[in-house]
Amino acid sequence: MTRPPGPRATLMDVAQLAGVSRTTASFVMTGRRDMRISADAEQRVRRAARELNYRPSLLARSLRTNQSQTLGLISDVVATEVFAGELIRGSLATALQNDHLLFIGETQGDVTVERRVIDGMIDRGVSGFIYASMYTRRVKLSRVLRTQPLVLLNCMGATQGIATVIPDEREAGRSAARALVRLGHRDGIVLVGEEPRAIYAAAERRFGVDEILDQQGARLAGTIDTLWWPEPAYQAVGEYLSSGRRPTAFVCLNDRVAVGAYQAAAEFGLSIPGDLSVVSFDDSDLASWLRPGLTSVAIPYFELGRRAVEILLAADKPTGTQRIPMRIRERDSIGPPANRRPPRRATVIP
Amino acid sequence: MTRPPGPRATLMDVAQLAGVSRTTASFVMTGRRDMRISADAEQRVRRAARELNYRPSLLARSLRTNQSQTLGLISDVVATEVFAGELIRGSLATALQNDHLLFIGETQGDVTVERRVIDGMIDRGVSGFIYASMYTRRVKLSRVLRTQPLVLLNCMGATQGIATVIPDEREAGRSAARALVRLGHRDGIVLVGEEPRAIYAAAERRFGVDEILDQQGARLAGTIDTLWWPEPAYQAVGEYLSSGRRPTAFVCLNDRVAVGAYQAAAEFGLSIPGDLSVVSFDDSDLASWLRPGLTSVAIPYFELGRRAVEILLAADKPTGTQRIPMRIRERDSIGPPANRRPPRRATVIP
Repeated sequence: MTRPPGPRATLMDVAQLAGVSRTTASFVMTGRRDMRISADAEQRVRRAARELNYRPSLLARSLRTNQSQTLGLISDVVATEVFAGELIRGSLATALQNDHLLFIGETQGDVTVERRVIDGMIDRGVSGFIYASMYTRRVKLSRVLRTQPLVLLNCMGATQGIATVIPDEREAGRSAARALVRLGHRDGIVLVGEEPRAIYAAAERRFGVDEILDQQGARLAGTIDTLWWPEPAYQAVGEYLSSGRRPTAFVCLNDRVAVGAYQAAAEFGLSIPGDLSVVSFDDSDLASWLRPGLTSVAIPYFELGRRAVEILLAADKPTGTQRIPMRIRERDSIGPPANRRPPRRATVIP
Repeated sequence: MTRPPGPRATLMDVAQLAGVSRTTASFVMTGRRDMRISADAEQRVRRAARELNYRPSLLARSLRTNQSQTLGLISDVVATEVFAGELIRGSLATALQNDHLLFIGETQGDVTVERRVIDGMIDRGVSGFIYASMYTRRVKLSRVLRTQPLVLLNCMGATQGIATVIPDEREAGRSAARALVRLGHRDGIVLVGEEPRAIYAAAERRFGVDEILDQQGARLAGTIDTLWWPEPAYQAVGEYLSSGRRPTAFVCLNDRVAVGAYQAAAEFGLSIPGDLSVVSFDDSDLASWLRPGLTSVAIPYFELGRRAVEILLAADKPTGTQRIPMRIRERDSIGPPANRRPPRRATVIP
């Protein structure tokens, strides 16, 4: 019954197996009705096509249309951020739902590599590009990319009018601050992370935090400047705590910084959240792996990828910036500040 | 000088800008020498091609050869393992070095999705496939995939003769055990991780550990059965330690399990490596983020990706299994067992 595996079946193979002419087979496969074909012949052609796993040549169609139902996802660094995989997954799943496949390319910030990858994808007939950055920032777009259907993902270009999908970082900052304020924190909140200058995400998150504190007539009790990794955060937080200062809460700019903050807090005998509340951004696996679990505002990587592909494939492509909500995932790392906790009930017999 | 961005330049555009016939432009661009072309005309054509960013149609060539200098990387789940990104990076970089681009597809273990992705890539003229699993295991290959140029990456098929690239898991197990034995551990080593039955990597790692202990006339002091995540590992190790047993060392089957082991050890007041040595597999970022840093045998993701692409593109494709060495990264989580440490020097005045 089944044919041994071999090279890809042609329309001629289908015609031969069905016992009809190539023209008849072609008419059946393309659904043309301007030639009379017997129901029996049509059935034989369809059965043969199924049996041989025949599919019309997409390459031939690509040449006519210069499109191959593919999209190009280009990123600075694919692997740096551990959960960027979710961004790829969201893009992949949505492309496939729309009968597109995904090329993936990494520039590593090298203009020459970027040019080669973009040219290579254009040569292969991609319908459009998603240009993604692994952390939210401004990017300089090459001229050739600006001539292509394009969606910016997790980054912003200098040019107006390019469709852009980014996480709502400012609202994320507000969420983090609100979670603390609601528990009674006010004057003892310290921001831990890189000085929010160059990094857009950091600046926006801080802006959101400041806004909520401002509404309370309060402001940050301080900032601890550190790079985005556990080791420098551990060092910086350790130095801060050595000075004897005791904040009621840390807002860490990402989960890796929070790891360093946890380690430093443990060393100073500070319990979380009893002595110190910690809230963070990313909601990476780390947040659930820490003890106690870390309250963290999630970067919606899958949704970012999904939206970018949807916009790229939309007939009437929206321009402007779409901000994807970032939801806070509450775990056990935040509680009321020590001075606001209800006094322990005395263990006397009533 | 520069032309406004527009659709992709054709050979006709080049000819017009250079002021020559399409045929002349074609001869220059394809390097044919069977027509006399003036040096001046040739120079004008080349300059026009550069200015217009003209590149010959790869799609047209693809149709002739049914190949588009692309490879397909198909994986069960792209994003599960946090460092799988490195595997994609290694594949990408090597493909690009060889003027190939990379399609990426995820099956999520769904046969229908897998079939669609594979068919879609064949339709677009891929030269071959890399079929990757995010953890080393046996896979069932679809019939259509077996008819294609194929390299298995981090997995093994039932069929003989398919080129396969996997990490050398057994040698990794030996390395982990050797690191402990060398420090004097012998009868107090406990394996922590999923019972090594279904999972090939787990079985091979354990086999390597057993081999080294066997050479010492020793064997594992026990196993702690747990899934591959911090939380269940924390629970399982905690239960084990509650029984009062005090192993000298843990061999954790991956870094996430080691995170749980660290957390449980801290709860029982056991210091690492003073009271308990810990060695693990993965060498993920986690290993460097833990305090003390975790000694871990690295999965060579980048190298795995690189080798797979090299084999797929090799003119004379090797068959059989290539095992990529896994190197141990020593950090501060292992030391001599407590009973083997030199006694503290008495603080008497000499």
